[in-house]
Amino acid sequence: MKRVMLTISYDGTNYCGWQTQPNGITVEEIINQKLSELLNEEIIVIGASRTDSGVHSLGNVAVFDTNTKIPAEKIKFALNQRLPEDIRIEDSREVPQDFHPRKNKSRKTYEYSILNRRIPIPMLRLYSLFQYVPLDVEKMNRAASYLEGEHDFTSFCSLGGNATTTVRTVYVCTVTKEGDMITIHIEGNGFLYNMVRIIAGTLIKVGLGVYPPEHVIEILEAKDRQVAGPKAPAQGLKLVKLEYPDL
Amino acid sequence: MKRVMLTISYDGTNYCGWQTQPNGITVEEIINQKLSELLNEEIIVIGASRTDSGVHSLGNVAVFDTNTKIPAEKIKFALNQRLPEDIRIEDSREVPQDFHPRKNKSRKTYEYSILNRRIPIPMLRLYSLFQYVPLDVEKMNRAASYLEGEHDFTSFCSLGGNATTTVRTVYVCTVTKEGDMITIHIEGNGFLYNMVRIIAGTLIKVGLGVYPPEHVIEILEAKDRQVAGPKAPAQGLKLVKLEYPDL
Repeated sequence: MKRVMLTISYDGTNYCGWQTQPNGITVEEIINQKLSELLNEEIIVIGASRTDSGVHSLGNVAVFDTNTKIPAEKIKFALNQRLPEDIRIEDSREVPQDFHPRKNKSRKTYEYSILNRRIPIPMLRLYSLFQYVPLDVEKMNRAASYLEGEHDFTSFCSLGGNATTTVRTVYVCTVTKEGDMITIHIEGNGFLYNMVRIIAGTLIKVGLGVYPPEHVIEILEAKDRQVAGPKAPAQGLKLVKLEYPDL
Repeated sequence: MKRVMLTISYDGTNYCGWQTQPNGITVEEIINQKLSELLNEEIIVIGASRTDSGVHSLGNVAVFDTNTKIPAEKIKFALNQRLPEDIRIEDSREVPQDFHPRKNKSRKTYEYSILNRRIPIPMLRLYSLFQYVPLDVEKMNRAASYLEGEHDFTSFCSLGGNATTTVRTVYVCTVTKEGDMITIHIEGNGFLYNMVRIIAGTLIKVGLGVYPPEHVIEILEAKDRQVAGPKAPAQGLKLVKLEYPDL
């Protein structure tokens, strides 16, 4: 018996998110099905990030236990041949039996993309939020800096998560612009339910001039979801990578 | 009566190319239909580039004549409200009555994108060709340089086009790499049927080491489609822009 870790990229457009659920096809479900077929045993993976419907990934992580004799590093190639084109295994490797993708210490990186110009670009519509009002990136970046550090992120959390604490550490939160594309880059030790999308929705309000950058400090202090901005749409969000320092 | 020029971007994934045809939905057909509804007169546009099925555009051009009182610059906003999300009018403006998007002198820019790494990235699958064998970009770029200038491009032309001459001038042809993405950038005064895709297919063979870069010179001299490389797949190609120096 060995534990195998998968690093998984997907285009979230056609999936009802990561986690298996009754109302639609999910990435987790497809992976369980194709792995079970490939290894000829029933496989149920444990995923790291339960991304929402429409959210993309360049590096979500999942583990499973198997009796297969196929070397862990070969599983990615065999599995990719069976998966639909919008899901790909970027890496597969053996990890210690006690490694758990949600319980082990990790550093997560997300990006939120905003196309900020007068007219949308069709090829980018599924991978960014379109916003035609010019956003003040300098102000957004200042607001973002107030989120760095250890804070209680209750104000940036939707109901329905199952976290035991609402305190998280954000290592990096920056807003940059290249051409017409604004990128919110955020790294932390963990994120609450919808936290990155609510941060994005709040920073967009700062960029529009609705909130001054310093209002973010008050939002954190209020510990009240009602005072933060709206949850930004899913298609702008992508999970960039998960790193496990102890692995 | 005025002549209006549209600059049109589209995600070609869901269309049977630009030109109206009996076997599927095309971009031209959708634009004719939505313009006719908007302006309440029958509109038939004249397009510049008849892109193939699956090819994308950031700036194809079409013109039409209309009696409408709507100012030409406003048409883009009104039309975008009616168009599907994968087609957008980037610009609309009045042009001289005798302007013709295929007959007037123009400079066309295309790009062909190749994702060159071991595992595909799902979010890029519709907008690039995936190639896992490492390509020699330096050799591809040298081969590309031989295509610059005025040449008879018969070897790089599929049957079925209706050009009166096969001589074209390529102003720029370069191959560069950024991260895992290789971009073939090509600018010219016009392109024959499938010319950019056959150039891409030929440069890929150079990158694989099948052809030495100098073989491109022999291919040009042969004036024979059989000696060039295969036509590269549509999804890697995008029409970047069309410029009309006399406009």
